[in-house]
Amino acid sequence: MASKEDIAKILVPRSQRIDESLKELLPSTDSASSPEIKRYYEGVWDYNLRGGKRLRPALCMLSCSMFGGNEEDAVPTARSLELLQNFLLVHDDIEDESELRRGKPALHLLHGIGSAINIGDALHIYLWKSLLENKKLIGATKAFAVFREFVNQSLTTAEGQAIEIAWIRDGKFDVTEDEYFELVSKKTANYTITTPLRLGAIVAGAPKRDADAFNQLGERLGKAFQIQDDVLNITASGEGYGKEAVGDLYEGKRTLMLVHLLKKLKGEERDEVIRLLAQPRNEKTPEQMQRVAELLKEKGSIDYAKKKAADLAVKAREGFDKKFSSVEENESKKALRELFDFLVNREY
Amino acid sequence: MASKEDIAKILVPRSQRIDESLKELLPSTDSASSPEIKRYYEGVWDYNLRGGKRLRPALCMLSCSMFGGNEEDAVPTARSLELLQNFLLVHDDIEDESELRRGKPALHLLHGIGSAINIGDALHIYLWKSLLENKKLIGATKAFAVFREFVNQSLTTAEGQAIEIAWIRDGKFDVTEDEYFELVSKKTANYTITTPLRLGAIVAGAPKRDADAFNQLGERLGKAFQIQDDVLNITASGEGYGKEAVGDLYEGKRTLMLVHLLKKLKGEERDEVIRLLAQPRNEKTPEQMQRVAELLKEKGSIDYAKKKAADLAVKAREGFDKKFSSVEENESKKALRELFDFLVNREY
Repeated sequence: MASKEDIAKILVPRSQRIDESLKELLPSTDSASSPEIKRYYEGVWDYNLRGGKRLRPALCMLSCSMFGGNEEDAVPTARSLELLQNFLLVHDDIEDESELRRGKPALHLLHGIGSAINIGDALHIYLWKSLLENKKLIGATKAFAVFREFVNQSLTTAEGQAIEIAWIRDGKFDVTEDEYFELVSKKTANYTITTPLRLGAIVAGAPKRDADAFNQLGERLGKAFQIQDDVLNITASGEGYGKEAVGDLYEGKRTLMLVHLLKKLKGEERDEVIRLLAQPRNEKTPEQMQRVAELLKEKGSIDYAKKKAADLAVKAREGFDKKFSSVEENESKKALRELFDFLVNREY
Repeated sequence: MASKEDIAKILVPRSQRIDESLKELLPSTDSASSPEIKRYYEGVWDYNLRGGKRLRPALCMLSCSMFGGNEEDAVPTARSLELLQNFLLVHDDIEDESELRRGKPALHLLHGIGSAINIGDALHIYLWKSLLENKKLIGATKAFAVFREFVNQSLTTAEGQAIEIAWIRDGKFDVTEDEYFELVSKKTANYTITTPLRLGAIVAGAPKRDADAFNQLGERLGKAFQIQDDVLNITASGEGYGKEAVGDLYEGKRTLMLVHLLKKLKGEERDEVIRLLAQPRNEKTPEQMQRVAELLKEKGSIDYAKKKAADLAVKAREGFDKKFSSVEENESKKALRELFDFLVNREY
């Protein structure tokens, strides 16, 4: 098991490279022609400057180098993954009525909903702008393949988002495990794991079957990642964890733990949990949410989810070793394995 | 002056071609895998099915054929212009708190704000998906030039939007005519006139100087178009006009008429108008808004704006004849001239 320092050695230099490349792409706030534009540029920069692990760029760059590609060739593509993430977070925070993002108020609480929608749109456009550099860097054919990958993946994410918003809007709580996993596949696994790894392979010029070999792995690991994300939201708290503790309960988010809990509970107790979670956000009290969090613990829902995540991660890891056995061992392959473990075992 | 029928002859067949091509791109609601996805697909289709004149696609296709290009080659690009427009409308309607769009409730009133943001994002992604077809149709070099054009233009529109939202949020009413025109240049002229015309030239393979020759024309005509749009919002009403009558006053939109009025008014009367317009939307009464509309008429602000639009249109038209004198007369060139006139003189 890689130490926190080992993981930092993998993530930090790549994160810094993305920081640099963002400076080349996004407008500096000093260049603004008016106070209104300055404020807007600050909004465009904001989530990009709040840190985050920059996991997706790292996965993309490492996949590229694992196949013998030059990581520098993957920089605009990796940067687009980061912009995609930040665009989605800005809009998701409005859609989910989130209040905190990486330890600070969500963007729409700082700029208003209208401005935040527009800033999210700008980040979305910059993600495509970033890809324009690929033509010169890796040639038109690969550049188009990367472009196509982003299109398909973004549409999948939007469908996942549509499902999740509809469940919350319609008060749908009778979600099955299959439905939950379909949601996670569309909304998270695809853009968090599968696409970054596929993109690295495409940039490196690896055969199509190598890019495709990431599909099942990304699916499994992405699900494990999301489950762990949901578990952390219930169990983590305080410093180091930048989101609202039990924020998912305030948002009424359907998680594997909740699916499990609602299956375990019967009659009045079940109705009570649904009633508590179905309330409008501003009517929920900390005591009520704490009560649900305790039920998740008592009824074994947290342990169930952790076990499921661990199983998925083991399968993903085995699949990786098997599918890429013909790719010779190298630093990048080793680093990817360490990241895969980290994604599921992280505490932050 | 072209008749309504002449204009229909130009717009209708091209609009139908875009309708067809949208069916090839967007998912049919029958193909949805769940009720949630079906509702989402309906949302993606909604504004695309509400009609609209499809001016931007027509400008793009006609510009292409004016330079001897095949209009079919411009279809995916023209379709992207329509998707861009509908993506922007969905998000703008949320940002401006609009209630009516083309005679029906705005999308966020039908789907909720969260879903509407997501549907707008989907339309945004489909605009890029549409452009993927260009590689095969017009070759990688032109396809990238089109891609780049959309990127630059969308960023300009987002800056314009940022300025407008900030003015309303910050209650800024001391807008000068120059500031107003800078806003219109960024927010409207670019994506409504300049970019569609430039794109047609690019698809046709016209020299760069031809595409660039549209910049000044688009600027002038785009401003005239926006002024006319604002005038119609105050003077038009009832059937045939799909937006809310005096909706711009409810939204507190800064228009050339308002800039003129606030310059004309002094002291208490000026303060009164600002006070009325600065109120939150739901506190504004029809009587108050009617009062402002009447002041716009009384103080000559509507006539002033109409005159300005007419002057800009004449200059644009003269510039067109001069700059493209070397392009031989053809049906498309004639149709473009007729559309330019229509853009400024339309009553709907």
